[in-house]
Amino acid sequence: MSGAEKILVLGADAAGMSAAHQAIRSARAAGREAEVVALEKTPHTSYSACGLPYWVAGDVDTADELIARSPDRHREMGVDLRTGTMATRLDLDRQLVSYVDVSGAAGTLEYDQLVIATGASPIFPDWMRRESGDLYGGVAAVKTLVDGEEWIQRLTRRFENDGDHHGSVVVAGGGYIGVEMAEAARRRGYAVTLLTRSRVMSNLDEDMSERIEKALTEAGITVVPHAVVDGLQADETGWVTRVVASDGNSYPCDLLVSAIGITPNTAFAVEAGLPVGRWGGLRADPRGQVAPHVWAAGDCCEVRNRVSDTWAFLPLGTHANKMGKAVGANLFGGQSTFDGALGTAITRFVHDGIHLEIARTGLSTAEATAAGIDVVSLATDGRTASGYMPESSRMSTKILAERGTRRLLGAQIIGGQGAGKRIDTVAAALWGGLSIDDLAAMDLAYAPPFATVWEAVQLAARRLADRF
Amino acid sequence: MSGAEKILVLGADAAGMSAAHQAIRSARAAGREAEVVALEKTPHTSYSACGLPYWVAGDVDTADELIARSPDRHREMGVDLRTGTMATRLDLDRQLVSYVDVSGAAGTLEYDQLVIATGASPIFPDWMRRESGDLYGGVAAVKTLVDGEEWIQRLTRRFENDGDHHGSVVVAGGGYIGVEMAEAARRRGYAVTLLTRSRVMSNLDEDMSERIEKALTEAGITVVPHAVVDGLQADETGWVTRVVASDGNSYPCDLLVSAIGITPNTAFAVEAGLPVGRWGGLRADPRGQVAPHVWAAGDCCEVRNRVSDTWAFLPLGTHANKMGKAVGANLFGGQSTFDGALGTAITRFVHDGIHLEIARTGLSTAEATAAGIDVVSLATDGRTASGYMPESSRMSTKILAERGTRRLLGAQIIGGQGAGKRIDTVAAALWGGLSIDDLAAMDLAYAPPFATVWEAVQLAARRLADRF
Repeated sequence: MSGAEKILVLGADAAGMSAAHQAIRSARAAGREAEVVALEKTPHTSYSACGLPYWVAGDVDTADELIARSPDRHREMGVDLRTGTMATRLDLDRQLVSYVDVSGAAGTLEYDQLVIATGASPIFPDWMRRESGDLYGGVAAVKTLVDGEEWIQRLTRRFENDGDHHGSVVVAGGGYIGVEMAEAARRRGYAVTLLTRSRVMSNLDEDMSERIEKALTEAGITVVPHAVVDGLQADETGWVTRVVASDGNSYPCDLLVSAIGITPNTAFAVEAGLPVGRWGGLRADPRGQVAPHVWAAGDCCEVRNRVSDTWAFLPLGTHANKMGKAVGANLFGGQSTFDGALGTAITRFVHDGIHLEIARTGLSTAEATAAGIDVVSLATDGRTASGYMPESSRMSTKILAERGTRRLLGAQIIGGQGAGKRIDTVAAALWGGLSIDDLAAMDLAYAPPFATVWEAVQLAARRLADRF
Repeated sequence: MSGAEKILVLGADAAGMSAAHQAIRSARAAGREAEVVALEKTPHTSYSACGLPYWVAGDVDTADELIARSPDRHREMGVDLRTGTMATRLDLDRQLVSYVDVSGAAGTLEYDQLVIATGASPIFPDWMRRESGDLYGGVAAVKTLVDGEEWIQRLTRRFENDGDHHGSVVVAGGGYIGVEMAEAARRRGYAVTLLTRSRVMSNLDEDMSERIEKALTEAGITVVPHAVVDGLQADETGWVTRVVASDGNSYPCDLLVSAIGITPNTAFAVEAGLPVGRWGGLRADPRGQVAPHVWAAGDCCEVRNRVSDTWAFLPLGTHANKMGKAVGANLFGGQSTFDGALGTAITRFVHDGIHLEIARTGLSTAEATAAGIDVVSLATDGRTASGYMPESSRMSTKILAERGTRRLLGAQIIGGQGAGKRIDTVAAALWGGLSIDDLAAMDLAYAPPFATVWEAVQLAARRLADRF
């Protein structure tokens, strides 16, 4: 393989493998030879972290279903993939990466081009750890396939001989994973307390958060917003029994989901001298480059928010795939770019007759204000289908715009089945830099099972447009 | 009321009543007096014609649910509404409309500003009529509340004493209403034959039509594309018994749904000297004006297709509402515009385990070619949700773009629950004049119950973008 370009990819999930395969395709298209080596610290590749809560809830039967491509499949497709192997040190000048593998063996690899796609890791606050630094028993995040397997075993087995006692789960963190794990634990028959430092889904506006909290409460979740947790109680084996808040309240806890957030895996990159941003993520240029011969993609990166034109940390598989694909193309002279994100996100809570879809895109009021933008906004109640149709359910759409320019800034949707994905309409409008008048005027699909004649999102835009 | 501006509105459905109420609001805002008279030939106002098939199918209990606003409600809101009254003659020079009412009484009304919102009427080909000109027994369209009531009575009562014989319905016309009435008749227990002159849903491309035909066939509908029907057989009472095609095939028919299409109600306007377009619709300027003191809105109009920049006939309540609202505002000096349509539309067929959603926006291949545009297109199979989720179903997305400019031209979607409304994402992109590269790059909502990581619509755009 002498003469082949040495591509070294660190991390074999969405970003890394998108880059690796695109690099192979691009090299072929350019008539060049590429030797693509990928190091992955876990035994797993290309799995859906977002699918874990649904596996835990019972919607998905086996971990295999969450794996988009196995290590062997990647190898068949031409990637020299080395699982159980972690990069430990990066020497930018010598273009050298040191690694250790699961057997403890260490080594170094030279590269012509390096792709950093090391992802992000869950944050565990100090109060979840014993003096030894280990987590208390019963505490885990929901990030890896191993986490998922552990949650299934815990939720289905630990209390199976306890008769009526089905146990209590405390979820720490009110974001997407927190809400999804609250659903999973409820569906597994547990009493669930959701503790959050600020509000549930705090990247939505406060009025929208309150609606979500109300729905979760109706579904039997004990929601505690603005909770400052600073300790837990454990039994003699070190297994958590209660979570204690600073206001003196405490909550029974047999299992503790840590869904506080994640942080980019960039320590070794920082050590090598690469700069990182406010959230600790690498800040690549639009083509994905962070330094000569060094590229980055995925959750280890910060991204540009197109609406505020500021950096943001938006770890999501969708961005990881796109960033990885661009980097892979650019390794062989391509001019592909990752053109930033809007902060689009969606989740749902479904249990016991409640079907709540939650979605957002663009800037929240707080984010817009922080970016120095003068915001006007309005939440409007509408319906997912014509009121006379059996599938019609309520939805609330909040639209945000810039005063004066009337530029669309963002939207938030909460509602029944079919409400959430409507956020894409606003995302497309935001991508195009359209105004609320455009959103109010555009030709959206109507038929009684699908929408009201004034489509709910459009009605919300029109009401806001008429008002200022 | 001397000194009040006399606004005369012809037609009291979506367009007319949107104009009437907006006129009242705008006059008030402008500090002017308005006297708004509306003539409506039927006894009904502001009903959902699109809801009729669902009422007939049994999803909706009563006609009342389909009525957005009753005549009395319109009167309470300040409109001098005269139902059972039809305009017969228009004198543009003298600003005078002649009318007759149900009692046979005739009269004339002066106007300062006239709003023509007379809608459209179903087309019945000659072979559906007896020598007398009347329709054969068992033949009806699906346009008015009276039609709906008649269909319910026919489908629920006519064969109730016939034991196993549940009768045969022939639907003539393979567009939205045709497909929806095929569903309604199937759900009412009838054998259904769908005859269409070209293809089912012929405003989609042929490959997409074929997929729809296949699904309808699986649902037990006898689909006959390219059928040239030129006669029917009737019993001694004049009730239809068979529909006969020119190729000699004939189809048993106890009830015949005429869903061939509709045509603008503009004969009296043409007689008065107003010009109409290719489909017989009025062609208003963006503010809604067709002549001095004369405005038009709704299904009696043609509209601008924003993508092809040509006139089109796209009778839909969504456009009618928007056009009416703009006209109402402009009667008192407003500068509101109706900025054209994209040809967005959606329907579904749901029966016996089959859930098929059908949507389109922008131009089809045939429409783009007719407009002189060099089209590239690709249909890509995807899924509505991550493959491992129970709600995941198949969907096919066809994306059309202009060669060279890469400008998005349109999209067509066929798929399971949640597929159809995704068309709005493309509609928003089309509204903004975006490219397929924009569609492939934009930040759309992903979570396993809602989408795949590469959102199906985006995957389709990317595949097309990569190919040319």
